[in-house]
Amino acid sequence: MSMAIKHALKTLRSEDFSAWYQEVITGADLAENADVRGCMVIKPYGYAIWERMQRILDDKFKELGHTNAYFPMFIPIDLFEREAEHVAGFAKEMAIVTHHRLEQCDGKLVPAGKLETPLAVRPTSEMIIGQSMAKWAKSYRDLPILLNQWCNVVRWEMRTRMFLRTAEFLWQEGHTAHETEVEARREAVQMHEVYKWFICDVLKIFGIPGKKPEYDKFAGAVETYTVEAMMQDGKALQAATSHYLGQNFAKAVGIEFQGRDGKLQYAHTTSWGLSTRIIGGLIMSHSDDDGLNLPLAVAPYHIVIIPMLKGESSQEIMEYCQKIKAMFPASIRCFIDTKEYSAQNKKWDYVRKGVPFILEIGSKEIETESVCVTQRIPLEKQSIPLSEFIGSIEKMLADHDAILQKRNSDFCNSKIVHVSSYNELKEFFSSGNTGFVKAKWSGTATNLQKLDELSVSIRCIPTEQSGTIGKCVLTGDETITDAIFAKSY
Amino acid sequence: MSMAIKHALKTLRSEDFSAWYQEVITGADLAENADVRGCMVIKPYGYAIWERMQRILDDKFKELGHTNAYFPMFIPIDLFEREAEHVAGFAKEMAIVTHHRLEQCDGKLVPAGKLETPLAVRPTSEMIIGQSMAKWAKSYRDLPILLNQWCNVVRWEMRTRMFLRTAEFLWQEGHTAHETEVEARREAVQMHEVYKWFICDVLKIFGIPGKKPEYDKFAGAVETYTVEAMMQDGKALQAATSHYLGQNFAKAVGIEFQGRDGKLQYAHTTSWGLSTRIIGGLIMSHSDDDGLNLPLAVAPYHIVIIPMLKGESSQEIMEYCQKIKAMFPASIRCFIDTKEYSAQNKKWDYVRKGVPFILEIGSKEIETESVCVTQRIPLEKQSIPLSEFIGSIEKMLADHDAILQKRNSDFCNSKIVHVSSYNELKEFFSSGNTGFVKAKWSGTATNLQKLDELSVSIRCIPTEQSGTIGKCVLTGDETITDAIFAKSY
Repeated sequence: MSMAIKHALKTLRSEDFSAWYQEVITGADLAENADVRGCMVIKPYGYAIWERMQRILDDKFKELGHTNAYFPMFIPIDLFEREAEHVAGFAKEMAIVTHHRLEQCDGKLVPAGKLETPLAVRPTSEMIIGQSMAKWAKSYRDLPILLNQWCNVVRWEMRTRMFLRTAEFLWQEGHTAHETEVEARREAVQMHEVYKWFICDVLKIFGIPGKKPEYDKFAGAVETYTVEAMMQDGKALQAATSHYLGQNFAKAVGIEFQGRDGKLQYAHTTSWGLSTRIIGGLIMSHSDDDGLNLPLAVAPYHIVIIPMLKGESSQEIMEYCQKIKAMFPASIRCFIDTKEYSAQNKKWDYVRKGVPFILEIGSKEIETESVCVTQRIPLEKQSIPLSEFIGSIEKMLADHDAILQKRNSDFCNSKIVHVSSYNELKEFFSSGNTGFVKAKWSGTATNLQKLDELSVSIRCIPTEQSGTIGKCVLTGDETITDAIFAKSY
Repeated sequence: MSMAIKHALKTLRSEDFSAWYQEVITGADLAENADVRGCMVIKPYGYAIWERMQRILDDKFKELGHTNAYFPMFIPIDLFEREAEHVAGFAKEMAIVTHHRLEQCDGKLVPAGKLETPLAVRPTSEMIIGQSMAKWAKSYRDLPILLNQWCNVVRWEMRTRMFLRTAEFLWQEGHTAHETEVEARREAVQMHEVYKWFICDVLKIFGIPGKKPEYDKFAGAVETYTVEAMMQDGKALQAATSHYLGQNFAKAVGIEFQGRDGKLQYAHTTSWGLSTRIIGGLIMSHSDDDGLNLPLAVAPYHIVIIPMLKGESSQEIMEYCQKIKAMFPASIRCFIDTKEYSAQNKKWDYVRKGVPFILEIGSKEIETESVCVTQRIPLEKQSIPLSEFIGSIEKMLADHDAILQKRNSDFCNSKIVHVSSYNELKEFFSSGNTGFVKAKWSGTATNLQKLDELSVSIRCIPTEQSGTIGKCVLTGDETITDAIFAKSY
């Protein structure tokens, strides 16, 4: 007899993290590769998670005064050229539309109707939204302009991975224009804090907020704020960024307004975005060897009831299931699955989908006025009197979230180390360790190749600084600045 | 002194309908032309209307068991070729991606990295979603598959017009796969009825539901259902369509499943869509010479309060405004506009935006514990004691919707005429009349050029049929079928 603990997934995290990641996605039915190169299909269960994320963020953006709008997906390539750094940052990975119809030629369809100016499919919308802002901002009275857009964007990545890096992905991109530098900087920081709240408090993902190094900012930005989340393989995932763009884009597209002094001046702009990539981050933060786990806020279902229908007692069983469902408060999302598949298969599907509580209901449960509950974290099955279950379900759900967060936070905190020299840094990463390394950094781009050799990068200058003085691990110069070093996605 | 009645728009509907339409859009700040050919920017106020439409439809789709998902926007052109009618219907108006990066060449950016297979930007997603359905539908137990997608699509139109016809537009596209023909046909009819409800009951737009003529169905469909809305210039707008696709697409992409009899069979599929075009229909149905009018369901604001701030009494005025706002039930969407523009300008902006009730509040209103209300339909201003206003606002809002609907319905009903011969039909359209003509039609494509000559088309075979027998106005053959003839957008 084998003593091995069986799991709902074939591959263990500890064996092959990358294969395990794909299995979590397949097992939870979140997404699949499309036949179109580099693109993915977000399946209903994956999309339901994204919809919940959208609703939470959208409500928050609106509460802070932003409104949604929609701008063209096509950007004439000559518009891109106006901001040199920006175009340099994106030119290598853009989908370009060059024709506007198909024609039959030797029995095959070929592109026809060549465009005079080729169009890029937006990789981001600073230029095109900036063009509109330039028309709208006539006077200081028209500012701030606080916009957000939910849309698809395209970046032609060579190596793709579901959710983390695909040619097309979904996101929100906020774009704002302000009268003063102070206001714009405050906006960029405010939205960075919204992301921190969403990632760490709502999604319970462990993340370190901070600034990007000067050389690794968004193409065209003055300042880039990031939340660097730690995945269970110790790698960093840049989870959401917020940029203070200075007057760079305002000058490139002409966002000029009449100030309080009557003089024309350029606006200060910001942009900030969070994409479906965060679903990859969610997966790699909370999933285990039995599949996905979800925080309540974005879980499509909190409880799934599986009626074990059997001949003549089927109606009675369905009624009992409906009675249970009706006893939950409206805030609990409960689904009764009556699909014609075996109860056992369905149960394991929901385990892999990360449903916090799964009830299997048959004649036995009716007789004993009880429920058979499978709790997802830790994975355990027990029978409980119905009244006791109803009385404690809200606490059990709250515990689910608390355990999820603590488990992730304890794990990540244990993977943060401090080093004080390049040798220590090298020793750490070259001996197979993973995690975030906190070390001193002078803030210059000097000797970065020493990091490249280790496939490590500076993820951020964390907001929380120790204030101690030490030697930069790359240059040896004295510095007060702490930085986070890690491998990354 | 001039006795002319002044209106908030420069152009009257009766003078130049097309110029008036553009003025309504500009006056209400709904949208603007983008610098990208054929594309538009949906501005925050226009997008807020779309968001309300989305929420209402999305809730209804989900109530009926549909789930949202997301599929790639790029479709390899060889995939399109598999359904001959389908590709023929769309090949002439597709944006084609042929390259995946830009390169500097003689100081200019040019497309580089040519793709082996060019990609079409989706004009609709039957083929790409069908490909996934083919993977998902293994057994009858996996059916029905009930999907919906909110996204952007591109159809390269030569003549564009805001909301009505733009190269890129937003829509929802439902795609379902069923075990039997009956089920799929029922789904297509059900979604057609959802559209009828949404267009006629929610948006209060006058529309005639029916089937499209055989020769004018969606490319690849067996049956196309439509709601043909009548605009104030008497032209028809195809407002939303629902298609029963038979097994055509299932065969093209291989949606084959094991039936209850153990044998492999093709699914029956449907698709149905409603786009931002409906905003154009909403504008042309309800707007008047003072600008936009909106049904409550999609109005971003029901009431706007404009505080007429003046020096030292400003704080008192703001408090009075907030007190009023707090007296409304939560279902009333009220906004206090404190932007630094003149109250008079703001008021007229909100008239043009179709806000049902606009309150101007200054010291006088505080002294007399009253409100100065501008009601949008009919456009009238009066002072009412605050208590009376609060007591009657819910009825006033309900009246707003009722008047909106009755006005539109009376107008459109007066523009429906019956004719019994081609000569009468010709007489009607060639003497400058506009509206819907009801007449007998044999159902064949014979003599359609007689309609082309009049720039008229058969809009639909209305669901409501008279059951009388008469002669087809195109062929003279005896027939029982009524059809709707009209000019159209």
